[in-house]
Amino acid sequence: MSHAIKRILDGNAVASRIKEQLAPRIAKLAERGVTPCLATILVGDDPSSATYVRMKGNACKRLGIKSIRVDLPASTTTEELIDAIGQLNEDKAVHGILLQHPVPHHIDERAAFEAIAIEKDVDGVTTLGFAQNAFGYADYPSCTPAAIMAILAHYELPVRGRHAVVIGRSPILGKPVSAMLLNADATVTTCHSRTENLADLVRLADIVIAAVGKPNFVQGGWIKPGAVVLDAGYNPGNVGDVDYEACLAKASAITPVPAGVGPVTIATLLKHTVDAAEKFGA
Amino acid sequence: MSHAIKRILDGNAVASRIKEQLAPRIAKLAERGVTPCLATILVGDDPSSATYVRMKGNACKRLGIKSIRVDLPASTTTEELIDAIGQLNEDKAVHGILLQHPVPHHIDERAAFEAIAIEKDVDGVTTLGFAQNAFGYADYPSCTPAAIMAILAHYELPVRGRHAVVIGRSPILGKPVSAMLLNADATVTTCHSRTENLADLVRLADIVIAAVGKPNFVQGGWIKPGAVVLDAGYNPGNVGDVDYEACLAKASAITPVPAGVGPVTIATLLKHTVDAAEKFGA
Repeated sequence: MSHAIKRILDGNAVASRIKEQLAPRIAKLAERGVTPCLATILVGDDPSSATYVRMKGNACKRLGIKSIRVDLPASTTTEELIDAIGQLNEDKAVHGILLQHPVPHHIDERAAFEAIAIEKDVDGVTTLGFAQNAFGYADYPSCTPAAIMAILAHYELPVRGRHAVVIGRSPILGKPVSAMLLNADATVTTCHSRTENLADLVRLADIVIAAVGKPNFVQGGWIKPGAVVLDAGYNPGNVGDVDYEACLAKASAITPVPAGVGPVTIATLLKHTVDAAEKFGA
Repeated sequence: MSHAIKRILDGNAVASRIKEQLAPRIAKLAERGVTPCLATILVGDDPSSATYVRMKGNACKRLGIKSIRVDLPASTTTEELIDAIGQLNEDKAVHGILLQHPVPHHIDERAAFEAIAIEKDVDGVTTLGFAQNAFGYADYPSCTPAAIMAILAHYELPVRGRHAVVIGRSPILGKPVSAMLLNADATVTTCHSRTENLADLVRLADIVIAAVGKPNFVQGGWIKPGAVVLDAGYNPGNVGDVDYEACLAKASAITPVPAGVGPVTIATLLKHTVDAAEKFGA
């Protein structure tokens, strides 16, 4: 029986480290008269989305980043949303633009994402931003995938040559995190709703990324002893995609929910906004 | 012992079918006074590249597609190459642009690829073209990955839910074919030079894509009985990436080299050129 110490990967610690490194950069920008500014667009009144947006706004405030919030009614059309994005693209005081996902079903979300100017796409949602990331030279990789890579790096968990199994293939999570792990020299298997024998595949993984959007989906019996488990899920009630206690029993390291990937995602968003302000700040 | 018939996947047959479907479209364009035109740029005097370019030119000619060949010396700079691409971008009579890979080492190939206008990127080499493909809505996916998908479709080999193992992660082959297989609902594992236990992973595959660029690299002992093997290799001397006889003994279906993926790649390039001429032909 192994007596290895279980490592709970502390997202708050990783986020704090990222924010500490931002503080002097923000001070330096202030000397030049530049305040980094993130504009967040929220369409409709989904309560969880409103919570995330508020959390992001508070995180900006605490760090001295300006946040602008654009609230649009649920009845907003794709064209109206694209117009609103266009105005933020034009606004020189805005360095980053975040369109809170998901938008109401009648809106063409992909078209709206594409309307974000690449130099303000701090959440890495545009098609071009995705591909730059897949080719390993993006300025702003999608924030949740980048947060997952930051946690692995912070805890010096090896990636090169390891087999990573990603459960999920969304354009803002499963696909970009698969690309980033591949670029970091992992062997990457991307699974999804059509995957057969999912449990058997996950059992092969040295690194498991849960990005499926189903509460407590990943079972303890799927985890190879000693694997690293990262839970990018954010289901209602602060529940992850991983059956935490069961997976904790098998894993060598695991992220909890809350206080795992979530806070690092927000810190990454702030970092990208500061990056953008340094590059394009007037 | 299994008596299943081995299927040799005939690339010439698939290519012929694609070209047959192009003939009436080219005739219709002619009525409008439009001749589809592919411009190919060859830098330096690599003999295999010269052969590929000649084969593509001949294939165009036989079908009534105009081909322009731009030969540049090995000493061409990145800037000069980009200038040459810019001229072809401006030329309304040119519908598709192909930069023959590889270019000499001193040239920034990625920068040159990016200089190709997206609407003329019939080989799917731009970053934006790659991402559109990864998101499932590209006009012109990279030709070799598209050829692999065309062979699977032609022979009605099932992809959904199957486990595909791709060996290779280049931006024009391994990465886009992984994306296309994923979008076709395969579970996809992408392997590469840093992969540990490669043979064990390939043994899991229902579909094996060899895109590694090493002659006879994939061994018969790596193939699960009944797997489908597609060889995208094109090594000197017309040798594939797969040890053909050994893998043939295990596979249910396999592409030979030559007369496998190669001719379908060329037919796909012609198809994309005709697509572009229909869209943008004056």
